[in-house]
Amino acid sequence: MAKTSENHQCMDDLKAERERCSFNKHEITTLLDGGEDKTKQRRKIEKVFLSDPEFLDATRPEYLSHEDRYANELRKACHMIRKFNEDEEIQQLVGQMDGIRTLMGSGLGVALTKDGNPLALHFIMFMPSIMGQGTVEQQGEWMGRAWSGEIIGTYAQTELGHGTFLRGLETTATYDPSTEEFVLHSPTITSTKWWPGGLGKTANYAVVMAQLYTRGRCHGPHPFIVQLRDEETHQSLPGVTLGEIGPRLGMNTNDNGFLCFSHHRIPRTHLLMKHSQVLQDGTYVRPANDKLAYGTMVFVRVAICFDTYRQLQRAVTIATRYSAIRRQSELVPGQPEPQILEYQTQQYKILPLIATVFGIHFAAQSVWQTYNDVTGSIHDGNLDLLPELHTLSCGLKALSSSDAANGVETCRLSCGGHGYLASSNLPRIYTTTTAAITYEGENTVMWLQVARYLIKSFREARQGHRLHHSVSYLTPRPASTHALQTNLSNAALVEAFRVAVSHLVGEVAARLQGQCDSGMVFEHAWNACSVQLARCAQVHIRYFTCEEFLSGVEKAEVSEATRGVLMRLCRLYLVFHIIGNQGDFLRSGALTPSDMTTLEEELATLLAALRPDAVSLVDSFDIHDRILDSTLGCWDGNVYERMFEEAKKSPLNQKDVPDAYYKYLRPLMKASL
Amino acid sequence: MAKTSENHQCMDDLKAERERCSFNKHEITTLLDGGEDKTKQRRKIEKVFLSDPEFLDATRPEYLSHEDRYANELRKACHMIRKFNEDEEIQQLVGQMDGIRTLMGSGLGVALTKDGNPLALHFIMFMPSIMGQGTVEQQGEWMGRAWSGEIIGTYAQTELGHGTFLRGLETTATYDPSTEEFVLHSPTITSTKWWPGGLGKTANYAVVMAQLYTRGRCHGPHPFIVQLRDEETHQSLPGVTLGEIGPRLGMNTNDNGFLCFSHHRIPRTHLLMKHSQVLQDGTYVRPANDKLAYGTMVFVRVAICFDTYRQLQRAVTIATRYSAIRRQSELVPGQPEPQILEYQTQQYKILPLIATVFGIHFAAQSVWQTYNDVTGSIHDGNLDLLPELHTLSCGLKALSSSDAANGVETCRLSCGGHGYLASSNLPRIYTTTTAAITYEGENTVMWLQVARYLIKSFREARQGHRLHHSVSYLTPRPASTHALQTNLSNAALVEAFRVAVSHLVGEVAARLQGQCDSGMVFEHAWNACSVQLARCAQVHIRYFTCEEFLSGVEKAEVSEATRGVLMRLCRLYLVFHIIGNQGDFLRSGALTPSDMTTLEEELATLLAALRPDAVSLVDSFDIHDRILDSTLGCWDGNVYERMFEEAKKSPLNQKDVPDAYYKYLRPLMKASL
Repeated sequence: MAKTSENHQCMDDLKAERERCSFNKHEITTLLDGGEDKTKQRRKIEKVFLSDPEFLDATRPEYLSHEDRYANELRKACHMIRKFNEDEEIQQLVGQMDGIRTLMGSGLGVALTKDGNPLALHFIMFMPSIMGQGTVEQQGEWMGRAWSGEIIGTYAQTELGHGTFLRGLETTATYDPSTEEFVLHSPTITSTKWWPGGLGKTANYAVVMAQLYTRGRCHGPHPFIVQLRDEETHQSLPGVTLGEIGPRLGMNTNDNGFLCFSHHRIPRTHLLMKHSQVLQDGTYVRPANDKLAYGTMVFVRVAICFDTYRQLQRAVTIATRYSAIRRQSELVPGQPEPQILEYQTQQYKILPLIATVFGIHFAAQSVWQTYNDVTGSIHDGNLDLLPELHTLSCGLKALSSSDAANGVETCRLSCGGHGYLASSNLPRIYTTTTAAITYEGENTVMWLQVARYLIKSFREARQGHRLHHSVSYLTPRPASTHALQTNLSNAALVEAFRVAVSHLVGEVAARLQGQCDSGMVFEHAWNACSVQLARCAQVHIRYFTCEEFLSGVEKAEVSEATRGVLMRLCRLYLVFHIIGNQGDFLRSGALTPSDMTTLEEELATLLAALRPDAVSLVDSFDIHDRILDSTLGCWDGNVYERMFEEAKKSPLNQKDVPDAYYKYLRPLMKASL
Repeated sequence: MAKTSENHQCMDDLKAERERCSFNKHEITTLLDGGEDKTKQRRKIEKVFLSDPEFLDATRPEYLSHEDRYANELRKACHMIRKFNEDEEIQQLVGQMDGIRTLMGSGLGVALTKDGNPLALHFIMFMPSIMGQGTVEQQGEWMGRAWSGEIIGTYAQTELGHGTFLRGLETTATYDPSTEEFVLHSPTITSTKWWPGGLGKTANYAVVMAQLYTRGRCHGPHPFIVQLRDEETHQSLPGVTLGEIGPRLGMNTNDNGFLCFSHHRIPRTHLLMKHSQVLQDGTYVRPANDKLAYGTMVFVRVAICFDTYRQLQRAVTIATRYSAIRRQSELVPGQPEPQILEYQTQQYKILPLIATVFGIHFAAQSVWQTYNDVTGSIHDGNLDLLPELHTLSCGLKALSSSDAANGVETCRLSCGGHGYLASSNLPRIYTTTTAAITYEGENTVMWLQVARYLIKSFREARQGHRLHHSVSYLTPRPASTHALQTNLSNAALVEAFRVAVSHLVGEVAARLQGQCDSGMVFEHAWNACSVQLARCAQVHIRYFTCEEFLSGVEKAEVSEATRGVLMRLCRLYLVFHIIGNQGDFLRSGALTPSDMTTLEEELATLLAALRPDAVSLVDSFDIHDRILDSTLGCWDGNVYERMFEEAKKSPLNQKDVPDAYYKYLRPLMKASL
């Protein structure tokens, strides 16, 4: 079989796409990185790590057994830490904690340890927990050893029978003043700790969340540092049963584990005591403020937004480049097969997802900024902004994880059957991204927390209270301000969003009230309205994202050509989501049926206008081929040859006739002879 | 750790659910099976195969290497055939071809070969192709050898660069009259056959689709029987390059393969000549009717509907049972954690999917019935009904595969983090089901074929032609018939659907016409409207499903109690999808905003009314625990203990300290000492 000109065709296709770029790619790269310096720094770190042959896999992880996969990723994870610890230049490049997150997370990390890093939780949860919840003495005792890798920890909260609802945890830590110890115990099978990454075989310590009992009273879940394995032999300690929980949809190499205790004793001083304390005599000292933990949750959830957004960037880069290479069917009979990106239905799958990347970016950036601005005053006890920040981080975590997971899947399917191939990398990007829908707060629970804030704010507004920025539009206004819909400008569409959400919130608040008035307990009424409540929350957070997207583009320090393409993406995002939620706009009177027809026609125009910039837009995400790790999405467009080369590496292809033939197939085929 | 009462709690929960069943489960089981006899037969076959220890796995396939997984499934696949060939009782039980499909497909098959059967395409595509496209002599030559397993075949159509668009295939078969042979050749890398199951290592023959050239002219793609491997040694023949395409999102054990030819010669008589022929001198004899192939496509696509529907049945059975066992959070503060099925948001995820199972069942059954009714007259050349049947099968294939895949994923996510565990089986059900979105006709292409039929019918109706049954509502009617919306009966809602789709089709037809009138080529205008065209198609097929669901329930021979619960499910399906597409109903005037509010309130009522029957409904799907294969979904509800037992089997748990510790972790941990 000859290698023929179609390889060059593919590469020429991308070249032609790149030549018609209407904007400055580098401006977008630095905008997303947060500045020229950050772009330089990121590229330098990528170079250092990606040029290290130790991070290459001898064979695709999918070919290995479960045990061998774990061993291979553990090898690379250990090398990563060693490299980091041994090289001062690298340390300076990446900065302490931040850098480790880059190496673990969905940026560079996915290229180094592909299907989960068994040491990730050590850096992302264990050490931050000690820093955030330990006293200065405790930090001194543990952090040095943790940094050097002398001890490896994880964070054990979720139990077999208990997830998002923290108060339901069953593991107990009962204080025994006679020995000044806590006794950790798992009273039931459902109290087994279940899921923590690195817990199965890697970690020898964990921060364990357990119900604190002292003097016969329960004080709720508290964090304890617990040794799990012998530091010398790595054997699990007496009273500690632990292991790996078995295979998963994805992330199969971070040895998620289970753990149960049988009256396991630890010193009193292993309770992390920055906030609450238990004195030697068993006296419980409650924290000055029990809302402080919300700060950490805001931080973690916004970090998830950035993680999922990077996954979506990767997927849409792959899908866009492949759509410019893949040719199929006929647009006009008798003419050559066009690039599938020429089809409006394909543009409709991909371009709104490029817009989504920017939407999540600007919205998450805004919450991040606010969090950093107020984090000082939070620690000084000023908690005014916490409920709003908490709500926004819950909502954005839910929106970004579900948008990203659905978006990745749309990208995968937009590549047809080839998206199903592991070598496209879209399967792994999906299995990793979708996990964020249920971890760190299951999304439906997140939406209902947002709804709670919306209903509370709506009621407060009716009582004359002033509302926080993100929900101020729920304040009752004279009807005249609703009459913006004749003009379909961006501002008018954002305003239409406000009208639609206000109307939704108003309807469900009235339904809630009606049910309470007719004698239902509030909690049951809440449950009976919760499908609609979750919807309110979704449309509210969508509105917030639209608004932040728009103001982000307006404020961005870029050339007019670059602002132009960003503005088209923002407009597409607005129009796409208004059409997707059109019922809310029509029912509230925010927009009319004829507005909808106009917007549908505009959608077609926007897709056509953005199509020529599609490849350049994903190029501007500046994702290294090793981080993309995709035969379909590589920079040079040499798709088919890469697929073929990758297939040849299958262990099954190392012999023409597989061993299984002799064992099973031949006896069957020869049976009738 | 003690095993305590919560295991009994779980089992008691399911027992309590079962006690409040309002209908006759067995009636639903037999309704779905197609009669009492079929239920008995199915159960007997299940018993025969599931009691055979040869079909048990020594270890979960996920723990094995890629090669070992393939060998393990090949072992079971061969045993399956042998068992079938050797046992006359089994042959009688399952009937020839039908029975093999049961054993391969998503019913019993998934319990026997879990992640893809390397022999499936031999029975599902290779043999049916010979039967459907071969002459009687060809059938005589090949079918006996194929039945006995003496030769193993597959079906090679898709190429690396060519999928749904059949005419784009590049593989050539050029007739050489001097030797009376066809020369098969793969002229480019993109012409490589890519994807066929069993092609990589298992099959020694294939039906290959190639462009037929004779006397210098191309006659389009035709099917050829091609030997690929030596019958004695199983080595690939000279001129034939083939292998496995590497790992995938799922179905990793059916050795999907690649294949290319270098001037590979086969006898003239290996062209399957039932329809077209090439004579010895190279004369091409065209088929009497080139539409006959559509019949097979209808058959294959309806079969996919039944396959995906069984996958959704499995997923929703797991999610429903788990939701009756899992307890979480508080509905009313201070009270015990309720079953998560008590939460309206959880009911909203699950109950519409139970309804979807019936919706797909009735709609697919109706197309299947029509197909069987007319199949005789089709072969007699009466092709009147073919376009409608073809359209419905395209649309239902797209609707059922995307509804099922999304539904399975909703089920997985409704189980929280535990749905991510392989032992829940939801990951595998998803990865298998989602494949149907792109295979046998990519769904977007399917939707646009439906749209083409809708627009054609709409135009014909305006020219006074009579339309076929499924689209007869597109015939212009006096406005008065639209005024049904004050009454929200089932009939009124179905009529509202007709009004909404008619309006949608009318709008897009006008837009198309407008663009053509302004000078656009029709094909470009079509592309510029294709997002809306695809939407029309989706709502049309949804309407069709609603109508068939309703009439299926009305006609079902069941007790009134059973009809009652089916009718509630049907109503839920209608209301759920009207709310989901509310924009179309509002814009067409089919329903008013206040109708929508009423329907939303009714939705809440329906969820509450169906909740007590949820577990009994999925019980009535009568899925054997081995076919469910889920720790979360098992009949007895002993969820947590099963999860724990399953986890203990992980190879990583066979040693307390893993080998990788000594190799990688210990050197890191001890480096600083």
